[in-house]
Amino acid sequence: MSNGRLVIISGPSGSGKDTILKRVLEILPEIKFSISSITRPMRPGEVEGEKYNFVSKEYFEDMIKNDMLLEYNNYVGNYYGTPKAPVEKVINEGGEIILEIDVNGQKNVKSQVESSLSVFIMPPSVEVLRERLIGRGTDSAEVIEKRMKTAIFEMECAKNYDYIVINDDLEKAVEDFVTIIKADRMNIQRNNKIIDEVLGKC
Amino acid sequence: MSNGRLVIISGPSGSGKDTILKRVLEILPEIKFSISSITRPMRPGEVEGEKYNFVSKEYFEDMIKNDMLLEYNNYVGNYYGTPKAPVEKVINEGGEIILEIDVNGQKNVKSQVESSLSVFIMPPSVEVLRERLIGRGTDSAEVIEKRMKTAIFEMECAKNYDYIVINDDLEKAVEDFVTIIKADRMNIQRNNKIIDEVLGKC
Repeated sequence: MSNGRLVIISGPSGSGKDTILKRVLEILPEIKFSISSITRPMRPGEVEGEKYNFVSKEYFEDMIKNDMLLEYNNYVGNYYGTPKAPVEKVINEGGEIILEIDVNGQKNVKSQVESSLSVFIMPPSVEVLRERLIGRGTDSAEVIEKRMKTAIFEMECAKNYDYIVINDDLEKAVEDFVTIIKADRMNIQRNNKIIDEVLGKC
Repeated sequence: MSNGRLVIISGPSGSGKDTILKRVLEILPEIKFSISSITRPMRPGEVEGEKYNFVSKEYFEDMIKNDMLLEYNNYVGNYYGTPKAPVEKVINEGGEIILEIDVNGQKNVKSQVESSLSVFIMPPSVEVLRERLIGRGTDSAEVIEKRMKTAIFEMECAKNYDYIVINDDLEKAVEDFVTIIKADRMNIQRNNKIIDEVLGKC
């Protein structure tokens, strides 16, 4: 049995990482998704336990105290974090679990978890990213410029990731992500036991 | 443009590495193959410049003196080596070049070339490897046992490689090798320039 892997996906708003992630989980249904614990109120359309577990501030602070989180952040008064237990379970069983986190989360997780693989989703250019954000029609020009500044900061952090996927064509980007996961399954870090198995050692 | 890569393929006699390599080079014709320089006489069926350049002992020793080889070995009085120039040319142009070398060659190259990617081809088991060698019908029982000893030594060195491909089914093994190369093209080591390109820096 191969060793497990924690897979991190990040990318700026407008990179298409949510859509890519959804499609990758359909293509490789054996991969688990890490549900974040958060303290902000549920928004319309959100479902408890799908992408997030909605918990109280007190419960979250207990998790921090008891070292139950792999990483967490406080953003405008609300906590966001990754519970340790489900991640450790999947890795110990030799599986893969995907975490959708930002560049700060990736930095924290990478320094803690040896068996991690991080993928950054990039738009093909800054101009295309701006056009995508404008095209959504949901944000004011001011909000868009703020998002662009954050995006550029995040893209500069892409150098800290293991892989970069350029999302120019969605289907190609999905295929690229799947290719990275499949190649990683043959990585020596995950196959040290296989050498002994082939050699007939226990 | 991405940075180039030196790809190393190794595997014991009977692992199927020659067949896999041939198929991979057909599927990805943009990949170059590194032609070794050797001093042993040409064997029937071999073609100058195909897999080997047949050179004199004097010429080979001049290459050693002039630091023109990436790695070399002397085996029963004959030299085998990898000329540096073609490898450096391909890497500087952002391409990929495959070297078919043994576990000692891999160790030497890996310590010298930062931008290398090494893949070890494994048989599914020691028993299958023995059956394959017997099935060829070309070697005596004694030669087969000698090959098996070498193979087991080589397989124990597989832990020094970046990836392991198990050759149980040939088409699957070819696909696996292609997947490793394609994923590697998205590796951050090869894409540092792409971040600047997306960000519009020169």
